[in-house]
Amino acid sequence: MSTDKVILLDFWVSPFSLRPKIALAEKSVEFEIKEEADLLGNKSDLLLQSNPIYGKVPVLIHKGKPICESTIIVSYIDETWPTPALLPPCAYGKSTARFWADYIDKKLFDAGSKIWMAKGEEAIKVAKKEFIEILKVLEGVLGEKDYCSGESFGFLDIITISLASWFYAFEQYGDFKIEDECPKFSAWMKRCFQRESVAKFVPEPTKVYEFVGMLRKMYGIE
Amino acid sequence: MSTDKVILLDFWVSPFSLRPKIALAEKSVEFEIKEEADLLGNKSDLLLQSNPIYGKVPVLIHKGKPICESTIIVSYIDETWPTPALLPPCAYGKSTARFWADYIDKKLFDAGSKIWMAKGEEAIKVAKKEFIEILKVLEGVLGEKDYCSGESFGFLDIITISLASWFYAFEQYGDFKIEDECPKFSAWMKRCFQRESVAKFVPEPTKVYEFVGMLRKMYGIE
Repeated sequence: MSTDKVILLDFWVSPFSLRPKIALAEKSVEFEIKEEADLLGNKSDLLLQSNPIYGKVPVLIHKGKPICESTIIVSYIDETWPTPALLPPCAYGKSTARFWADYIDKKLFDAGSKIWMAKGEEAIKVAKKEFIEILKVLEGVLGEKDYCSGESFGFLDIITISLASWFYAFEQYGDFKIEDECPKFSAWMKRCFQRESVAKFVPEPTKVYEFVGMLRKMYGIE
Repeated sequence: MSTDKVILLDFWVSPFSLRPKIALAEKSVEFEIKEEADLLGNKSDLLLQSNPIYGKVPVLIHKGKPICESTIIVSYIDETWPTPALLPPCAYGKSTARFWADYIDKKLFDAGSKIWMAKGEEAIKVAKKEFIEILKVLEGVLGEKDYCSGESFGFLDIITISLASWFYAFEQYGDFKIEDECPKFSAWMKRCFQRESVAKFVPEPTKVYEFVGMLRKMYGIE
């Protein structure tokens, strides 16, 4: 393996794998995608060697060394290719961005996934309420700004918009519209999805929806 | 409040609050501790204002601004007072330290707490097994080095040794010795506990044990 190459171990629908893809595109770094075609079953030897602890995508391989965990990978990308900066320059700005990234990592995707995993109307209602409450917190973080990171698209936008690639599926299975609940957050989503670095890699919402449908069948939900 | 002051919202037995205390001591930064005396019941207005999302210690207040979440606080301290450096200088070293800090944050303390929370011999056995498996992974990270961070005490040592302040209580309630299971990890613990920045702030093992005993009564475990 050439040591200069940047390689991403990826799975096309993974919202977490989308993060390094967008970050690398923002930095205009060329990289090779190695698709883990069989992620639900067998994992490649390269994935298991590169991420022995979790055996999960994404893994960034740079100079022959693996970096794991999507939020940590985005930080690595920002430190390795500093222009344009994704994280704020000051320590306080960095700590705020990391705080919200951590909040999102702990809460957002799991809450959204509960919507399509829920069986029965009442369970769906509870899951939807929890998810929308989190979105409202994030809408508060966005405030009147164009981007979560401030005036320009940055670290926190990448962390969040990547997970939003699944929101259409959440809306379909929860029978609700984020636009009705959180209009400012929804406008931010549209703004980000139109951005070149995002548009280039984000999977089609209907394909994610189909994939989630397949997961529901697999888990015996429908 | 003076804006130059460094204030830590603390609770004496919190293993997470120990992290910023050790990091500030390593940097020779003077700080004022504000004890949340009534953490199990009422929280101070300052804590709720400073950490409205979680309402939890530790919170570092620097230049009048709050920084929350212990691992993020230690990063902030390292960026704000750069000497001596706690995180490695290179992006790859940083990403490795962050990966293990994240692993520890996700697994170690919860697994240990399951030991004293367990009811019945079988449950204690399962909890102990899980906890020791995690310690063995961390012993592998330590390898033959004196410190997790390498030749000198650093970020990952602070993240880990702070949680180790509860390990005596885990051992007592699980009836085992870390020294027997993970001798190298145990030697590292002793090395760290003797360090001035740690020894100055780490609570007495027997006091932590008593505190855990109180928690057990509160939760109706004994």
